[in-house]
Amino acid sequence: MMKRVPLNNLTEFVNNILKSVDADNGQAQIFADALIWSDLIGRPTHGVWRLPAYTKRIDLGLIKCPCEPEYSQENLAVTVMNGDQGIGHYVGHEAMMRSIEMAKKFGIGAVGVNNSNHFGTGAYYVQLAAEQGMIGFAVSNSISKVAPHGGIKAVFGTNPFAFGAPRRNGKSMMLDMATTAIAGAQVMKYAEQGKALPEGIAIDNHGNPILDPNKVDEGALLTFGGAKGYGLSLMIEILSSVLTGAMFSTGVSSMFTNFEQSGGNGHFFIAIDISRFMDFEIYNDRMEELLNLVKDTANEDGNVMIPGETRWEQYEYNMSNGVPLDEATAKALQGLSDKYKIPTPF
Amino acid sequence: MMKRVPLNNLTEFVNNILKSVDADNGQAQIFADALIWSDLIGRPTHGVWRLPAYTKRIDLGLIKCPCEPEYSQENLAVTVMNGDQGIGHYVGHEAMMRSIEMAKKFGIGAVGVNNSNHFGTGAYYVQLAAEQGMIGFAVSNSISKVAPHGGIKAVFGTNPFAFGAPRRNGKSMMLDMATTAIAGAQVMKYAEQGKALPEGIAIDNHGNPILDPNKVDEGALLTFGGAKGYGLSLMIEILSSVLTGAMFSTGVSSMFTNFEQSGGNGHFFIAIDISRFMDFEIYNDRMEELLNLVKDTANEDGNVMIPGETRWEQYEYNMSNGVPLDEATAKALQGLSDKYKIPTPF
Repeated sequence: MMKRVPLNNLTEFVNNILKSVDADNGQAQIFADALIWSDLIGRPTHGVWRLPAYTKRIDLGLIKCPCEPEYSQENLAVTVMNGDQGIGHYVGHEAMMRSIEMAKKFGIGAVGVNNSNHFGTGAYYVQLAAEQGMIGFAVSNSISKVAPHGGIKAVFGTNPFAFGAPRRNGKSMMLDMATTAIAGAQVMKYAEQGKALPEGIAIDNHGNPILDPNKVDEGALLTFGGAKGYGLSLMIEILSSVLTGAMFSTGVSSMFTNFEQSGGNGHFFIAIDISRFMDFEIYNDRMEELLNLVKDTANEDGNVMIPGETRWEQYEYNMSNGVPLDEATAKALQGLSDKYKIPTPF
Repeated sequence: MMKRVPLNNLTEFVNNILKSVDADNGQAQIFADALIWSDLIGRPTHGVWRLPAYTKRIDLGLIKCPCEPEYSQENLAVTVMNGDQGIGHYVGHEAMMRSIEMAKKFGIGAVGVNNSNHFGTGAYYVQLAAEQGMIGFAVSNSISKVAPHGGIKAVFGTNPFAFGAPRRNGKSMMLDMATTAIAGAQVMKYAEQGKALPEGIAIDNHGNPILDPNKVDEGALLTFGGAKGYGLSLMIEILSSVLTGAMFSTGVSSMFTNFEQSGGNGHFFIAIDISRFMDFEIYNDRMEELLNLVKDTANEDGNVMIPGETRWEQYEYNMSNGVPLDEATAKALQGLSDKYKIPTPF
């Protein structure tokens, strides 16, 4: 049964829980907002459902809050940030804001991040850029779960790719996708719901399909689009780990199963200042002209969705009607409520 | 029957043909090299087979050679280049070299290009970056042939995506792919060979599959990986046309069928200076470590290819054994030979 709770009540609850693990600071606030934003846009697998794993990691000192990020370069349009084992969402937010700052100065800015943790939803970061009239890229590696095309063992993470571009109505185009056939969090949902996976999602160590979502960890996920998705996954691994000095492959730790090490994730962000290319209003005109052409390709009873469009529809609905908490999420929050003696928001 | 010709003889022939249409300058040289590079890496659909269409366009003044590109910005890490209706390969070469220059100064550089023409193989540009120790991106729009996911009419080009990263052995990782299920040039090859297309490649105006490669122009190609490929194709259209001021959708002209207008294509390039992120030797170590992990995922009798690996194998073989000219290419060159009274190189 899905519950809905007012945004303020959920935010208060999350903040109180974070206080209970001594994470009562600006970094925790940014984390809470980013987590809840995922629920608002309809991505519960990256929302407050994950809070128990975070509080446990913060409690164990595997995630530092506050952390003290350090940068390798000044006065350039690129830098490397050591995330100091901080919350991935906070570290990512800092890195994207820094990219935006550099883009204001140079027209473009890029930040590579090492020593971070799982950063949640890539769309969150590109939206930070879009809000400031910028195009944004955000990619991250993650724990090794994915086989290269033609291989039978996992080496890549689900390596999400996010791209965002502002729109006049504020509902930016947001492309945010795992480079796997389905996202890792979706596999968990299949498992929770007791459903079998379709073919083409995962293979065992002999290259045969895995259909039981609980057995995916014994094998490897596959990339989307065969060799093309593999190429993109490798690109993301190069940008977010090779180039940043972050961990890769088995060097990255699971936030759900490894409670001995920090994640070690790497990210890579780019912000591009549209106003250095053309007048922002002309950009807006051109963007809407293109998107109208795209929408007009639908047949009579169909609809072509702009990437992010469904997210924004859910965002608006949820802002008016309360943040949706599915069964798994409500259960997770109930567990935290019991543990930290803080009443649930529902 | 495939013919092989020594590189020098082919280069001389191409240069002589270009002289015949009064394109006897440094820009034409770069074009000739880029065209032949496609044949060397085993992409004949983007090689000298296209020369007749170019000479015709140059003759008609639809492509200017020499052209005089102009830039919108100085002293930033981004700029927009007006390609002045030049040869796409030359314009693209200039734009990537400018990105590299800016990356040397700022750590990253990006150039958006409008008023250009078809730029050939994206891999060519990212290889220019890789040769200088840089990561490169190159994307371009092209004539509208591709339907958005869920749509039934063409609005995007086949919109290639190229990413390159240097390797210690000089054979850089090169991802170069159309965002369609298959490349436009591959459709032409199906038609030439009289073969039917598989399903999932193209649809007619009712959304039904097109299997006859000669009828693709009556409908639309589909993106690879469904909604994900659509998202990437839209991203490329935004970067290379919306943001640059280039034409989009039906505003872009076919180099093969429209002999009244210049192409109007747009491109977008990024170069990233690795040495601003870490010592280049450390990068090389890390890159090879990752690629070894990737190769090691193959089963006993399998092989996992690094993007670009097959290209470099063909490049080496063709450099030793002569540039391969397939039947269609030999026919194209014979036609030019007859027209301009210049002996073929075979």
